[in-house]
Amino acid sequence: MKVESQHIPLFSQENPLKLDSGKHLGPVELYIETLGRLNKQKNNAILICHALTHGAHVAGKTKDHQEKGWWDTYVGPGRAIDTNQFYVVCSNILGSCYGSTGPTSIDPATKQAYGASFPIITVHDMVRAQKKLMDHLDIPTWAAVVGGSLGGLQALCWASDYPDHLRSCLTLAATAQVSTQAVAFDYVGTKAIQQDPNYKEGAYTKESPLEGLSLARMLAHITYSSEESFQKKFGRLLQKKDKYSYSLEPEFQVENYLQYQGNKFLKRFDANTYLILKKALSYFDIKARFGSIKKAFNKSKCDFLIVAMTSDWLYTPKQSQELAKALMQLNKNVSYLEVDSKEGHDGFLKENPILQDSITAFLKRLL
Amino acid sequence: MKVESQHIPLFSQENPLKLDSGKHLGPVELYIETLGRLNKQKNNAILICHALTHGAHVAGKTKDHQEKGWWDTYVGPGRAIDTNQFYVVCSNILGSCYGSTGPTSIDPATKQAYGASFPIITVHDMVRAQKKLMDHLDIPTWAAVVGGSLGGLQALCWASDYPDHLRSCLTLAATAQVSTQAVAFDYVGTKAIQQDPNYKEGAYTKESPLEGLSLARMLAHITYSSEESFQKKFGRLLQKKDKYSYSLEPEFQVENYLQYQGNKFLKRFDANTYLILKKALSYFDIKARFGSIKKAFNKSKCDFLIVAMTSDWLYTPKQSQELAKALMQLNKNVSYLEVDSKEGHDGFLKENPILQDSITAFLKRLL
Repeated sequence: MKVESQHIPLFSQENPLKLDSGKHLGPVELYIETLGRLNKQKNNAILICHALTHGAHVAGKTKDHQEKGWWDTYVGPGRAIDTNQFYVVCSNILGSCYGSTGPTSIDPATKQAYGASFPIITVHDMVRAQKKLMDHLDIPTWAAVVGGSLGGLQALCWASDYPDHLRSCLTLAATAQVSTQAVAFDYVGTKAIQQDPNYKEGAYTKESPLEGLSLARMLAHITYSSEESFQKKFGRLLQKKDKYSYSLEPEFQVENYLQYQGNKFLKRFDANTYLILKKALSYFDIKARFGSIKKAFNKSKCDFLIVAMTSDWLYTPKQSQELAKALMQLNKNVSYLEVDSKEGHDGFLKENPILQDSITAFLKRLL
Repeated sequence: MKVESQHIPLFSQENPLKLDSGKHLGPVELYIETLGRLNKQKNNAILICHALTHGAHVAGKTKDHQEKGWWDTYVGPGRAIDTNQFYVVCSNILGSCYGSTGPTSIDPATKQAYGASFPIITVHDMVRAQKKLMDHLDIPTWAAVVGGSLGGLQALCWASDYPDHLRSCLTLAATAQVSTQAVAFDYVGTKAIQQDPNYKEGAYTKESPLEGLSLARMLAHITYSSEESFQKKFGRLLQKKDKYSYSLEPEFQVENYLQYQGNKFLKRFDANTYLILKKALSYFDIKARFGSIKKAFNKSKCDFLIVAMTSDWLYTPKQSQELAKALMQLNKNVSYLEVDSKEGHDGFLKENPILQDSITAFLKRLL
């Protein structure tokens, strides 16, 4: 499976990206990976939008990414998103640290990395940059925009903000409005980073706020998982012995697992980037932005497949149902699928034949 | 309503309390408050066990506690736990910082506060100290042992560890086994404190790890509440303006509320104490200790009322049901009540006529 990768300059200092905040950002480039071929009619392009800490490397391997992509089991020749039939584009989101412009990029004004001075962006801003990417690629309409979690929020923005430019919208574990509890968790994660003495109000250099970032990641990881999944994987098993240590040292397997997840994250992510992207999530509220879900999608022309994971307690099935119901009331062509999964919010990332078959069926109509 | 308070020495250095860890602790004293009068037959005493960060001040006022107690709406003359009829004893738990022996107490070996050298204790150890208190008060059998959350775990220990010494056991928002997810959350809270530079491996003095403790409390507070309750109280309302600040500053009402809760907690609690008590929670596992729930309560003679709050996702109704089911299979006299509440785990602390009436009815049989 051939994967092509490009860094694409989209906005310049002179012609910057206008952000929801009113600020201007330039230059802006997006790093993308593509699979498959755009057909002559240019009607087989699918945009895959990634979640918070993923990147453009969705499937296959590239020279720089020898490990498999984050959704490799779903994307490829003969897979649910079939690269023999579709031209798949996955772009690292604006504000991220995997090749697109974000806090680790150089600010032309200072010749230093933006760090904490990178402007606050919204999910709609991310999609605004993707729209420019679409123009650059000379794709008039996406056959589908597909994404889970933050990726699903981007897919919804496409349907609300650019209703003429997609034929279908597939969201997984998404919501029209990030919940109060999710905002609360994100606040604790943000504080964990900000309170780390190495954070230095975002002006850290070599000594980055690793402990705070690790803590934020561990907390987030709990919210992406589920008690059922934790129970199955670890239960209350101890790491080394059968007996309690009677100390404050970590000893439960779940504790070591979380620590491992926290540490692993430090090697691949940046604290300022994390804060920027988490804030974009907290701000996500289609209802407030447009007045209601119905008003947001009134002009949408695409078909919708709204997928929820049964054990997702971060962006719950109830939230997906609310979205699907509003779309039905608008007489949109909408399907709602609740996938039985014990894996919580992140369940859409795991192999799941029902989910895979449903995506295949949903996309088949587009050809 | 007259409240009497006492500090009661129960173990000495020579005759110490033997802990589950194998360590010995002495001297040990418990601070208690009592309401009502013990009758001649000594069969009207109720032990109320408090949750993680509460103390003996359950109801009414004392010279030192002019504010109402933590369960004032449930305990008093004519209330659900009627102090005209029952002699109510509430003891600050072993390991706490509200008058009983804990990390802030003086270690006789060093003449300094124990701090981080205070031994790790279990909920069973807390109850072991309460049993000595019972002997001291010359009460042969509790009419009832009552408690919510950690208080409910204590009530269960009474039924399993001292089956001859209580006639009824009333648990609210409790579980026979603290879940993997709860252990995971506690791990993040513990790390938050330990990573605070002022923690100094527990050897802090004046400069205590306030930021870490506040973070741990904020996180715990989310787990004690529910999305429904957050939604009702705050939704996605902003603190000051209608427009987003486009900064990393807290701006949602729920963020300010959490910060307020975190800050308030610092004035009343100690970090080492918090770590010790959280560890006792993580260790709580009746199933592992006895082999199964059935084995734990096989010898219990008391009646049980197991109460769950519908929106409690920390110690879930499912966990209470599992407990009630095992007790039924043992042919115990057990009632299970699921109280409709949007307030999450902490719902048992709020006024709730159905819960209040049910407690009244359950206790009436004892007179």
